[in-house]
Amino acid sequence: MFGGCGSAIFAAAFPELGIGFAGVALAFGLTVLTGAYTFGHISGGHFNPAVSVGLWVGQRFDGKDLLPYIAAQVIGAILAAFVLFLIVQGQAGFTGTGAFASNGYAELSPGKYGLLSALLIEVVLTAFFLIIIMGATDKRAPVGFAPIAIGLALTLIHLISIPVTNTSVNPARSTGVALFAETEALRQLWLFWLAPILGAVIGSSIYKFVARSKTAP
Amino acid sequence: MFGGCGSAIFAAAFPELGIGFAGVALAFGLTVLTGAYTFGHISGGHFNPAVSVGLWVGQRFDGKDLLPYIAAQVIGAILAAFVLFLIVQGQAGFTGTGAFASNGYAELSPGKYGLLSALLIEVVLTAFFLIIIMGATDKRAPVGFAPIAIGLALTLIHLISIPVTNTSVNPARSTGVALFAETEALRQLWLFWLAPILGAVIGSSIYKFVARSKTAP
Amino acid sequence: MFGGCGSAIFAAAFPELGIGFAGVALAFGLTVLTGAYTFGHISGGHFNPAVSVGLWVGQRFDGKDLLPYIAAQVIGAILAAFVLFLIVQGQAGFTGTGAFASNGYAELSPGKYGLLSALLIEVVLTAFFLIIIMGATDKRAPVGFAPIAIGLALTLIHLISIPVTNTSVNPARSTGVALFAETEALRQLWLFWLAPILGAVIGSSIYKFVARSKTAP
Amino acid sequence: MFGGCGSAIFAAAFPELGIGFAGVALAFGLTVLTGAYTFGHISGGHFNPAVSVGLWVGQRFDGKDLLPYIAAQVIGAILAAFVLFLIVQGQAGFTGTGAFASNGYAELSPGKYGLLSALLIEVVLTAFFLIIIMGATDKRAPVGFAPIAIGLALTLIHLISIPVTNTSVNPARSTGVALFAETEALRQLWLFWLAPILGAVIGSSIYKFVARSKTAP
Repeated sequence: MFGGCGSAIFAAAFPELGIGFAGVALAFGLTVLTGAYTFGHISGGHFNPAVSVGLWVGQRFDGKDLLPYIAAQVIGAILAAFVLFLIVQGQAGFTGTGAFASNGYAELSPGKYGLLSALLIEVVLTAFFLIIIMGATDKRAPVGFAPIAIGLALTLIHLISIPVTNTSVNPARSTGVALFAETEALRQLWLFWLAPILGAVIGSSIYKFVARSKTAP
Repeated sequence: MFGGCGSAIFAAAFPELGIGFAGVALAFGLTVLTGAYTFGHISGGHFNPAVSVGLWVGQRFDGKDLLPYIAAQVIGAILAAFVLFLIVQGQAGFTGTGAFASNGYAELSPGKYGLLSALLIEVVLTAFFLIIIMGATDKRAPVGFAPIAIGLALTLIHLISIPVTNTSVNPARSTGVALFAETEALRQLWLFWLAPILGAVIGSSIYKFVARSKTAP
Repeated sequence: MFGGCGSAIFAAAFPELGIGFAGVALAFGLTVLTGAYTFGHISGGHFNPAVSVGLWVGQRFDGKDLLPYIAAQVIGAILAAFVLFLIVQGQAGFTGTGAFASNGYAELSPGKYGLLSALLIEVVLTAFFLIIIMGATDKRAPVGFAPIAIGLALTLIHLISIPVTNTSVNPARSTGVALFAETEALRQLWLFWLAPILGAVIGSSIYKFVARSKTAP
Repeated sequence: MFGGCGSAIFAAAFPELGIGFAGVALAFGLTVLTGAYTFGHISGGHFNPAVSVGLWVGQRFDGKDLLPYIAAQVIGAILAAFVLFLIVQGQAGFTGTGAFASNGYAELSPGKYGLLSALLIEVVLTAFFLIIIMGATDKRAPVGFAPIAIGLALTLIHLISIPVTNTSVNPARSTGVALFAETEALRQLWLFWLAPILGAVIGSSIYKFVARSKTAP
C-alpha cells in the first residue's frame, strides 16, 4: 500500500522523468513480491481483505482469523496513507492531495470509464488474481516461486486497469487513500469492497473446481 | 490474451502516463509467466496453438490432445476479447474499437512493414520461442525457472516486434481480437496462423536436433 | 553505487529516449541483485553502512567487522564516483557535474520536498528495507531468492522516493557523489547518514520483535 | 544479438510509444537470461567472445574451444544482423539503415562521449560483467539463479552506458551490426574488441583473486 500508492503520489506524473502507469504497476507488484518473501514464513503475507476472503473460501485460511486480519489490513492501510499525507505536505507549493491515488469510476476514473466497466474489470481481475494465488501456492507448484508469480500478477493487473479504475483489487488500499483524497472517492468506495471480494470468491471457487477435477483420477 | 491485449487496449497510449510498447511487452510476458506458475502443474499451461503444435512436433505433447487444446485456446481468446469489448464500451466518449490490438502487415502494421517482413519476423521469433520453451523445460534445465524464462521470452519478442506486426506468435490471440477490430485485420489473419505455426515447427525441430546431437556421446 | 548513479548521470534525462526515474530505480535494484548473487557467498554482499548497522543490531553481523566494512563501503563509493567523474568529462560540450545524482532536501530535492519530508521518508524506507533484508534472509524463507527480494525492494524504494530526496537509504552512496556535485549536497549529507542509520535500527528491531514473538510457541 | 539489436532498431524510437533506452536495456538482458536457461545445460550458453576469453582466463572454459566458439559467435551475430537488415527493408518509406544499433565513440556516440570515456566505460563494465558471471556460476552460489543474475547484469550495463557507446561489452554484437551500418562504425570497431576483452581479463582475474583469498583458510 505504502509502496504502490507512494510511487503513484510522488513519482507517477513528475515532469519529463516520471515513472508513469508502468512504474506504478511495477511498484505495486514489488510491494507484494518483497512483502511475501519477507513475511510469507511468518504470517502468510497477505495484506488484502479480498485475498483473505478468497483464501478462506478456498480452504487455505482459517475463518476465525478472517476478521482480525481484515481489521489489521484496513488499519495498516490507513496508517500508510497518513504517513504519505504527512510527507506530501512538505512539498514546496503544496496545494492539496487531489485524488491521492484513490480508486473511482465515471468522473473519478482516470480514463472516464463508467460504473459497469469498473465493476466488470475489478471482478474479472480479482478473480484472475485469486486463481494465480491459489495455483502458485498449490503444493504441486515449484517451491519458492509463488511471491514472484503473485507479485508480478499484481503488476500485470495494474498494467491493464489503471486507466479504468486506477486499479483496486484491494479494498484496504482503496479505503486508506480515499480518506485523504479531496475528491468524492469515499462515496464510490462501496464498489471497491464489493467487486474485489466478489471476484475473489469467484476466482477461488474456479481454482478449487479445476484443481479438484484434474486430480480426481 | 486478456492481460496482454487488455493492457494494449486500455493503457498503451494513455496521454502522458501511458505504458507504451514496453509496458505492453511486459504485460504479455507476465500473462504467460503467471499463467505457467498457476496452471503448469495442472494442464501444462500452454495457451497458444503454435506452442501446442511445436510441443507435439517436439514429442512433448500428445497428438490426440492437439485439436481439443487448440479449440479451447481459440474459444478462450474470443471470450477474453469479448469481455475487453464490453469494458471498453463503457468509456465516456467511446467511438469504436479501432484496431483493438489486432495484428497486421502493410497498412495494418504499426510501423508500416510489408508482408514479407511480417512473415519473416513472425517465423523467426516463434522459432526462437519454441527453442526457449523446449530448452527451459528440458529435464536437464534448473527446476522451477521455466515460467520465468518463457514469460520473459515473450516480453522480449514483443519488445522487438510490436512495431512490425503488433506481435502475434499466437494465432489464438490474433483471432480473438481480429473479430472485434474495425480494421481489415480478419483478412490478414491467415498470416498469423501460418507464420507462427511454421516457426514453431522449425524451432522445435532445431531444438530436438541440437539437444540430441549434444547428448549422443 | 556505480550502477545506479551511473545510470542516473548518463541516461536518466537523455533527450526523448532517456530511462527516467523508473530506469534509474531499476538500475539501483539490479546493482544489488547482481551484487548479492555474485558476492553473497563470499562477503555477505552488503555495500551499505546502514544495512551493516541494521544487520549488526539484528545480530546477523559481527560488531568487530562493522567499522572496516563501513570504511570499505565509503572508499568504494568514492572510487566509483571518481570513475563516473572521469567518464562524464569526456562528453563533448561538458559544462560541469551539476547535482551528479546526489541526495538533498528543500532546494536540492528533485520535487522540492522539505527537511521533515526527507527525514521521514528516508527513515521509513530504510526501516522497510531492513525488514525485507532480515525477512528474506531468514532461515525459514525460501533459499536462493533473497537477492531478488532485496534488489527489487531497492527498486521499489527508488520508484517511491526519487522525487523526494533522489533516494539515499545508503550513506556511502550519498557521500561518494556529494564530493563531486557542484551543489551544496555536502552540507546536507548529515541527513543521509542520520536518517538511513536510524531507519535501519528501527527496521531491524521491528523484524526481530515480530519474528521472535511469532516463533515463541 | 537479434533480440537486443532488433528491439533497438525497430522499437527504440517509435513515435510516442517507443521503448526507449530502458526497453532496449531490458531486451538485451532478456536475450541472455532466456538464452542461458535454454542452452545453459547444452553449450554453457555464452554468445560473447569477451565472456569466452574471460571464462578461459578464469579457468572455467577449455582453451581449445576458444577459437571455434568465437568464430561461431561472430558468424551468428552477422547472420542475425542480416535477418534484421532484410526485415527493416520491408518498411514503407525505408530510406537506409542509419547507425543500425552499432557502437561508437565521439561523433558516433549517442551522447557524444569521446574515445577515452568509451574505452574506460567498456573496460569497467565488462570487468563487472565477468565478476558477476564468475560469481553467479560459482559452485557456492545458489543453484539455478545464474541466468537471472547474468541477464539482469547485462540490462544494468545497458541502463548505464547506452548514452556513452550504445553499449557493446560484446565484440560479436558490435561486429554484426557494424557491417550493415551506414556510419563509420567499422572504423571504430577495434575499440569494441579491445576494451571488452581487456575488461573481461581484468574482471575474471579480480574474481579469481578475491574468491581464492577468501576460501584459503
